[in-house]
Amino acid sequence: MTDVSAGRRLTVAIAGATGVVGTAVREILAEREYPVGELRLLASERSAGRRLPFGGHDVAVDVLAADSFADVDLAFFAAGGAASKRFAPAAAAAGALVIDKSSAFRSDPEVPLVVPEVNPDALAAHKGIVATPNCSTIQMVVALKPLYDAAGIERVVVSTYQAVSGSGKKGPDELRRQAPRVLAGKPAEAAAYPYQIAFNLLPHIDDFLPGGFTKEEQKMVDETQKIFADPDLKVAPTCVRVPVFNSHSEAVNVQTRRRLSLAEARALLAAAPGVELIDDPTKLSYPMPIDASGLDPVFVGRLREDPTIENGLHFWCVSDNLRKGAALNAVQIAEELLRRELV
Amino acid sequence: MTDVSAGRRLTVAIAGATGVVGTAVREILAEREYPVGELRLLASERSAGRRLPFGGHDVAVDVLAADSFADVDLAFFAAGGAASKRFAPAAAAAGALVIDKSSAFRSDPEVPLVVPEVNPDALAAHKGIVATPNCSTIQMVVALKPLYDAAGIERVVVSTYQAVSGSGKKGPDELRRQAPRVLAGKPAEAAAYPYQIAFNLLPHIDDFLPGGFTKEEQKMVDETQKIFADPDLKVAPTCVRVPVFNSHSEAVNVQTRRRLSLAEARALLAAAPGVELIDDPTKLSYPMPIDASGLDPVFVGRLREDPTIENGLHFWCVSDNLRKGAALNAVQIAEELLRRELV
Repeated sequence: MTDVSAGRRLTVAIAGATGVVGTAVREILAEREYPVGELRLLASERSAGRRLPFGGHDVAVDVLAADSFADVDLAFFAAGGAASKRFAPAAAAAGALVIDKSSAFRSDPEVPLVVPEVNPDALAAHKGIVATPNCSTIQMVVALKPLYDAAGIERVVVSTYQAVSGSGKKGPDELRRQAPRVLAGKPAEAAAYPYQIAFNLLPHIDDFLPGGFTKEEQKMVDETQKIFADPDLKVAPTCVRVPVFNSHSEAVNVQTRRRLSLAEARALLAAAPGVELIDDPTKLSYPMPIDASGLDPVFVGRLREDPTIENGLHFWCVSDNLRKGAALNAVQIAEELLRRELV
Repeated sequence: MTDVSAGRRLTVAIAGATGVVGTAVREILAEREYPVGELRLLASERSAGRRLPFGGHDVAVDVLAADSFADVDLAFFAAGGAASKRFAPAAAAAGALVIDKSSAFRSDPEVPLVVPEVNPDALAAHKGIVATPNCSTIQMVVALKPLYDAAGIERVVVSTYQAVSGSGKKGPDELRRQAPRVLAGKPAEAAAYPYQIAFNLLPHIDDFLPGGFTKEEQKMVDETQKIFADPDLKVAPTCVRVPVFNSHSEAVNVQTRRRLSLAEARALLAAAPGVELIDDPTKLSYPMPIDASGLDPVFVGRLREDPTIENGLHFWCVSDNLRKGAALNAVQIAEELLRRELV
């Protein structure tokens, strides 16, 4: 760990630089003026040699390898779980602090799993790798955080409506290809998903586990408990892929441990970092995925009391799964590390 | 009430005969060989004179009026709430038994609200009008029925994924018109819905009520309690419009009153009338709206225990909202009335 001094600039690597999330990390680093000295863009052989813009000039993409990380301060990993497992430990051993987007290390007790609005203090315990949670978890915990701090959370029942951009570039490509075919009465010809996604729903994201849940659903359970450091916080999820290009939505039913009036919950959410309340039924104002895309907040609306249970609340939250759900959260972790002099 | 005799054929009217549900009622009456003697097709001035096929010849559409129902045995109403309020009492007074698709009479204690697989005995108390529930309620109660009978139901948390066909012809028309525009980067130009529906989600179906719920959500609460004749059955709904042409889907979390093992729940659902279980994760088999359209059953899958609560179960159900959710349920009520000699 080097000293932090005013004006210090970091050597930053992005592994998976040509992918959807890697691209967003590069753009958000520039947008938020992260103090990048040197930027190393890393990807597979296939993409090596491509040049991508950053800070007014082009940067050539190098092949991601174990020896890519000499003198790197901060390494964003967005190249998939296999690449993270293979190269992140080497990067950390070389002295880089890894911010990993994959699920490879999320359940590792030595690896903090961090959403800066929720559990930034967990960063202090890092041992070279910090993990950023799954997109569907991030937006939910940002919205739950003010309620959790004020009243505790007993149980959450959540149904997701997840956009195809969560599957990488092939998701939107498939939806864009299938939609006109289906409108023309032609077979959809599924490739990226097991079945047609255009004008359809798939109650299936990631692999199935023995109990009948999917890995995507289990992530929402395990990651939420780890982020709140609360193994008694119960999460009952159903994850569904919907024919929306970008931004995930979630119908969330919460039972808090102590009572919160609707007015209190509304005030807490309105003031919560990372949350933007869009909730005025008289003006038909509520969050929608087409409005959230390209923006940073977790948008919350449809807030109402659930009269069927003690301390029950319903809300609907929408967020850009590529930004807050992935790249932005990773860059916010990098900012927080710098602020806390941890990198 | 006339005597029922073998070979008796009924004079049947369809009010709203040219709409999406009225058309489906006419087709399903033919398909299921309901004993129709004379068929009267009724609609607004605009559609009068059109000829529609039934039983091998064409039937002219008449103008719906208070005096349309002389000698009618059975009148299906699918012309919207205003038309039902205006003409259904007149039809009943003229001796017709009305099966009403609208929400006009659903909460009337004198009007049975019936799903034949769930509460056919309620038909006996009819006073000339029987109501058929809202589409999103019907498919849920058909799936809940076997669980309710075996173990009681304490509480249901349900998130819906509702197709645009639920909005009448203008819903699919709008999705079909908008999708190519959005793909071409043009403005969607919302007309049938307050906002773009193509590649978007609207957490808003029907009008908002003071508590923040929509009427669609309140219907799921009130209708489910009335159908099960159980005011203690708690329903916590969120209703969402999705860019799917036809068939509604629902993520349902149930807490039964007594414990049901997963195996028991599976066996009960597999044997339940009107339910078809499609649930084999090892074969990626689960219900999807594109598979359900045009078919009669309520398809149930993703059945799994919810370990976060005592007696908890999750399932996902999909059904054609125009068939079981509307026209088929109405025709099944007509069949049940005949079977019970109530018409």
